[in-house]
Amino acid sequence: MTTVETPRAGARPYPDEALDLDLRWWATANFLTAGQIYLLANPLLREPLRPEHVKPRLLGHWGTSPGLTMVHTLLNRLIRRTGQETLLVTGPGHGGPAVLAGAYLDGTYSEVHPEVSADVAGLTRLVRQFSTPGGVSSHAGVHIPGSIHEGGELGYALLHAAGAAFDDPDLLVACVVGDGEAETGPLAASWRLPAFLNPRRDGAVLPILHVNGYKISGPTVLGRSSDADLGAYLHSQGWDPVVVAGDEPRAVFRELDAALSTAHARIRALRAEARAGRGRVPLRWPAVVLRTPKGWTGPRTVDGVPVEGTHRSHQVPLSRVREDPAHLAQLERWLRSYRPEDSFDAEGRLVPELAALVPDGDLRLSATPRAGGPRFRVRPLPLPDLADHALPVPVPGVLQHETTRPLGGYLRDLLVRTGRADGGGDFRLFSPDETNSNRLGAVFEVTDRCSMLPLQPGDEAIGPDGRVVEVLSEHLCEGWLEGYTLTGRHGLFATYEAFAMVSASMVVQHAKWLQTAATEPGRSPVPSLNVLLTSTTWRNDHNGFSHQGPGLIDTVAPLAPDVTRIWFPPDANSTLVVAEECLRSRGRVNLVVVDKQRHLQYLDLDAARTLVSAGAAVWEWAGTEDPDRARTDSPDVVLAAAGDVPTMEVLAAAQLLREHVPHLRVRVVEVVDLMGLLPPGEHPAAFSPERFRDLFTDTVDVVFAFHGHPRAIHPLVHGRPDVDRFHVRGFTEHGTTTTPFDMVVVNRMSRYDLVLEALRRSRRVPEGGDALARLCREQLRRHREHVVVALDDLPEVRDWTWQR
Amino acid sequence: MTTVETPRAGARPYPDEALDLDLRWWATANFLTAGQIYLLANPLLREPLRPEHVKPRLLGHWGTSPGLTMVHTLLNRLIRRTGQETLLVTGPGHGGPAVLAGAYLDGTYSEVHPEVSADVAGLTRLVRQFSTPGGVSSHAGVHIPGSIHEGGELGYALLHAAGAAFDDPDLLVACVVGDGEAETGPLAASWRLPAFLNPRRDGAVLPILHVNGYKISGPTVLGRSSDADLGAYLHSQGWDPVVVAGDEPRAVFRELDAALSTAHARIRALRAEARAGRGRVPLRWPAVVLRTPKGWTGPRTVDGVPVEGTHRSHQVPLSRVREDPAHLAQLERWLRSYRPEDSFDAEGRLVPELAALVPDGDLRLSATPRAGGPRFRVRPLPLPDLADHALPVPVPGVLQHETTRPLGGYLRDLLVRTGRADGGGDFRLFSPDETNSNRLGAVFEVTDRCSMLPLQPGDEAIGPDGRVVEVLSEHLCEGWLEGYTLTGRHGLFATYEAFAMVSASMVVQHAKWLQTAATEPGRSPVPSLNVLLTSTTWRNDHNGFSHQGPGLIDTVAPLAPDVTRIWFPPDANSTLVVAEECLRSRGRVNLVVVDKQRHLQYLDLDAARTLVSAGAAVWEWAGTEDPDRARTDSPDVVLAAAGDVPTMEVLAAAQLLREHVPHLRVRVVEVVDLMGLLPPGEHPAAFSPERFRDLFTDTVDVVFAFHGHPRAIHPLVHGRPDVDRFHVRGFTEHGTTTTPFDMVVVNRMSRYDLVLEALRRSRRVPEGGDALARLCREQLRRHREHVVVALDDLPEVRDWTWQR
Repeated sequence: MTTVETPRAGARPYPDEALDLDLRWWATANFLTAGQIYLLANPLLREPLRPEHVKPRLLGHWGTSPGLTMVHTLLNRLIRRTGQETLLVTGPGHGGPAVLAGAYLDGTYSEVHPEVSADVAGLTRLVRQFSTPGGVSSHAGVHIPGSIHEGGELGYALLHAAGAAFDDPDLLVACVVGDGEAETGPLAASWRLPAFLNPRRDGAVLPILHVNGYKISGPTVLGRSSDADLGAYLHSQGWDPVVVAGDEPRAVFRELDAALSTAHARIRALRAEARAGRGRVPLRWPAVVLRTPKGWTGPRTVDGVPVEGTHRSHQVPLSRVREDPAHLAQLERWLRSYRPEDSFDAEGRLVPELAALVPDGDLRLSATPRAGGPRFRVRPLPLPDLADHALPVPVPGVLQHETTRPLGGYLRDLLVRTGRADGGGDFRLFSPDETNSNRLGAVFEVTDRCSMLPLQPGDEAIGPDGRVVEVLSEHLCEGWLEGYTLTGRHGLFATYEAFAMVSASMVVQHAKWLQTAATEPGRSPVPSLNVLLTSTTWRNDHNGFSHQGPGLIDTVAPLAPDVTRIWFPPDANSTLVVAEECLRSRGRVNLVVVDKQRHLQYLDLDAARTLVSAGAAVWEWAGTEDPDRARTDSPDVVLAAAGDVPTMEVLAAAQLLREHVPHLRVRVVEVVDLMGLLPPGEHPAAFSPERFRDLFTDTVDVVFAFHGHPRAIHPLVHGRPDVDRFHVRGFTEHGTTTTPFDMVVVNRMSRYDLVLEALRRSRRVPEGGDALARLCREQLRRHREHVVVALDDLPEVRDWTWQR
Repeated sequence: MTTVETPRAGARPYPDEALDLDLRWWATANFLTAGQIYLLANPLLREPLRPEHVKPRLLGHWGTSPGLTMVHTLLNRLIRRTGQETLLVTGPGHGGPAVLAGAYLDGTYSEVHPEVSADVAGLTRLVRQFSTPGGVSSHAGVHIPGSIHEGGELGYALLHAAGAAFDDPDLLVACVVGDGEAETGPLAASWRLPAFLNPRRDGAVLPILHVNGYKISGPTVLGRSSDADLGAYLHSQGWDPVVVAGDEPRAVFRELDAALSTAHARIRALRAEARAGRGRVPLRWPAVVLRTPKGWTGPRTVDGVPVEGTHRSHQVPLSRVREDPAHLAQLERWLRSYRPEDSFDAEGRLVPELAALVPDGDLRLSATPRAGGPRFRVRPLPLPDLADHALPVPVPGVLQHETTRPLGGYLRDLLVRTGRADGGGDFRLFSPDETNSNRLGAVFEVTDRCSMLPLQPGDEAIGPDGRVVEVLSEHLCEGWLEGYTLTGRHGLFATYEAFAMVSASMVVQHAKWLQTAATEPGRSPVPSLNVLLTSTTWRNDHNGFSHQGPGLIDTVAPLAPDVTRIWFPPDANSTLVVAEECLRSRGRVNLVVVDKQRHLQYLDLDAARTLVSAGAAVWEWAGTEDPDRARTDSPDVVLAAAGDVPTMEVLAAAQLLREHVPHLRVRVVEVVDLMGLLPPGEHPAAFSPERFRDLFTDTVDVVFAFHGHPRAIHPLVHGRPDVDRFHVRGFTEHGTTTTPFDMVVVNRMSRYDLVLEALRRSRRVPEGGDALARLCREQLRRHREHVVVALDDLPEVRDWTWQR
């Protein structure tokens, strides 16, 4: 089997004059790339190069850059010829100066950053600012127009490209994947995209696997693999790769141009077939394997040691330029080899014949409206009415219901409202094969799981037009949703809480992107990244310890406060209200933590709206403060909860206290918006000192039952008055396959533990307290004896509902 | 090209009588698997099945189990025939009852858990305990002898298998990979193992890709891929797969037996060739693709709906057994189809002809000494003498040195001491291509980067015998090291701090394994998982924000205290001492956080030993308390540091205070063992109340400069006296490409910020305080003006060293 096709098949003519111009453009881009890495001044080398023109600290990555500039050059040619709207995702984001050079030459960079103008002064600023304090960072980050991908943490290029292509039927997303990045897990898994990409309604992703052979200091696995193996690897996963290889620029340009135009023609054919109802199964999408030397066109050898084509060109090929006159001279020869005098006029403007190579307006790679540029638009979601999905909850704490199930109905209606005739839309649900398990299965009444693979008799809710994307990889779910939202569409990633940690680093990196983008000129807010953490720690009693872990809360809480929100709706209606808030929001990472199983329901829709908009509330119906007294007359102890299971345990504890120690003044506080606990100034959602006092007083001890690791509350409240008084119970990493109630016992968060802690911490203990404490200890003792043989909870626990 | 070979080539005869016996063994294992899922009593169905024999809550995963029991059966046959020492890694760990059934039938389970005896009482306990409170969890966890892999969080099976095979030249590691798990990133990347597995010194890994077609509720990608694509996918990555497919047990048994014996013969041939010096490049290792129905031999249909061969058999095929007599009857028919009366004698012991199928002693899959069984041994490392590597540090805070470089020399010597003649050893260094970057490059004086791929002229420190494993995937580094340590060998995973978050979920799961294993009978302690976090947040000023993240500290701190340690050595010699402590330790996850770049050095080797063994110390030489006074005479303010950069800033702040406000009594505290801050009872390393008071007093305000997110200190100190007095500075998620000093300024942890905070918090401010505050504000103002054009730090900052 040969999987390697000739790149020339179907290629368009590439006249020598056009090639000459493109090579000059490429040289210009390479010149500006090297200039950014090295120069402080004298950006066009109009004077002999002197040490003081060179940055004292040389930073940046040259090795990958010439490949990136070549791709940019030839995509420009494709766009000029075809008018194809194209987004470029640059996996080797370390090649930031190359991507920035392209945006500068396109003219978009100066549009967004007028101080980096298209003249000598602007060029000086361009080179000086790069990787310089107060300047711009060294990756393909938010400061570069047209970029949706920073490329610092490797692995997500093809995921972001796929997310951008979903539901954008006429878009081409070209995606450069480095052979270093290709060793990562997320990238390796993301080659499976053809199983999920539908040419009828989705754009195309054209991977350009850039095999330059080396990482920082060693060879890459793919760099030492044969063309046949590389081809078979991609072909077997749904691609039809061509290999373009060489180190002679004219030849490589011709081959790559042919490969790109062939790929584009084939993509158009695939689209046309699919849209005429003649889809193929399985599809093979075009792909390019590009083998060119690392550090191409840079110094071949330095001090007698090979550099071009080796790992030594990864960062700065010549490192002692200021100190060593020979290095300085070699740098000058290298830079002058690009003939900048042919590219820029006297004012430092690109000469007209090169400027003519820039595609028109929004067709420029760095001006695409998909990537947050000036014409970027986000359609607000046509959200369904919550009232159509809310549960009737006439009294709190009696009805039991699967908390996430109404959300499934809401998402079903949202999918209908956001659907398009071609099968696409602007809202998707992503999940690792857990949509049904997470009680969101109502969505399958109106759509399918997306699959482009062969269907079989008996398949249920599976098909190419599915807008639920299920793949057993949190990385893929998270990364595809990131790409989808970064290009202005909306979605939800629903996952088991514990395994949300699999993609924790991606959430961190996405939060950093959003944080930086918020202050970047020319960037508009994108829809939030909404992550539903369900099948939670407390109710994975059946699956056991590996499935019990609230770690993502600990990961997200310290991130940028302007970006992060962590929600703990206690029941179904508050979950709906939180979901609406998250789907309306922009530029945030929203974690919504709520279990899927049957739980007590507390709030009707109005009460849920009130609670969520306040972020936290005193539940007077659950406490034993005298309602006639002013709030300033402090309770004896505060019981607080964040999370569904903690809420149930706190309410049960409050009821035990009310029944057995009726004269104790207990306040019950319910917290939904966790970040409200942070002190003012530390988070936009922080409760004011007055609100915090209204909830927790400034002096009374607080027994806090928390969904996550208990110590996670302390960093939030630090800075509030007298935080020694916060006594938190939560998940202390005691888990196994057991019962729900045993989970709260072994982690010392059960109602009995809470009562004992409340009695211990209360300012006074009226009559009955000692007897109640004995009762609680006895219940815990009985439980521990009982659980060894028990097959479910103690009866009095299982049947508990709120009674007043 | 055909990549699919015939499984019969080279196969041994499989007489009908032998096959009949193996099928009876398989039926017995399937019977016990289903029995564990369903039964409370009547384990051999010696009475008619009644509802009360059935568990009230049905938990467990049937679908994958018959495939697992078949693999176990046929590996037993291979072992009996060849005496091949074999470890079985079960990726679909949800099939825990199948793995447990195998260990029970092997006899090892009763050896470790005598209460689950080889008789009717033991069988009753076996079925009753499964997935029951107080019983055993539902995965292939630590309670199952022979298991090194829980299989709850999917993705790591082939990584653990590889880690087990490294440097264990005669071992065969069979590894079942589910087609669900195959969709994950880590698993997808781990197919690249042949690029790193050396038949001369390593054991073999035999992947058995079990394609049963379905996940929880949908088809798998591989399940809908053709045999040709599956074969090409594996072949292109270094495997020579055979496909075994079918649903007729006798035929599938014959085919799989042939595939296993052919694979084993080929592995022996590869080994022999390699050990005779005739290695092939590239190698293709045997692999098996096994297509059998999900839920094979279980109910074909339930209530008229297909179950066998569909996702509906994933968990419990018959769910209403207690309520529905028809389901009960179907369950009884299903269970009786395995003919338990033919497998067990009157006492409930396995009949002799089946018991004879168990391999001898330690050759039993569940008795392998590799997996922590009774004959598991860990060789203590022959650690080099630290004195050979320590830096001379005559005075603190003057010498600058790359902090991790001496560790590189130490590891080099350790590699020499742990090497074997065949190129193997029992210590390895894992890193994502960052060994040189992290200043550990001295190891390449004695070994190479491991690569089994073609070498090229000019390659440096690359070769098949390399014991440094560099692959650009934190998942692979982490997972390989996990497998290596779980089988008793030692290692270090050195990585950029920010990207350690990529494998954070693996660290969480490994900590859970270690925590559970610590109390499991028959398990011995394994070497610790040592993770060096370097190229840290504070000194990734050159790479920018994506490279700045201390999140793994937040992830690890809340995990089981008996397992976790987080170390902040401030300099090179303390790093050596911490490394020695970590390499000696067992059963822990050690994070060592220290930067690689030039930093001030403070401690000679003796002082470093004293500090590390104490966990924290008052640095009297740096403070301004009167040394003649008793420690109980409190300082006015405490300055504390954890981490190298925080230490430098605290010392500089202390010096500013000493020079400008000499009468202020400042105490400087250096913290190395972060978990010491936790209150007694919360962690074995917790400082006693007296020690904590000696460090921090009980009342004086503490200004704490911390390497990580500042709020991470509050959950640790909560429970200590008056924690409102802890004022922490650290990384507040402000980052970019800038200077090291700008990093501490934008995160408000600079010496000037610390001085201002100390003056604000001090119990008294003597004369000179106001002037110093003005000076600090002026310095910060100058910095902020300066940084816009600066190319490096302010001179007075760059040149700072300790002066007294």
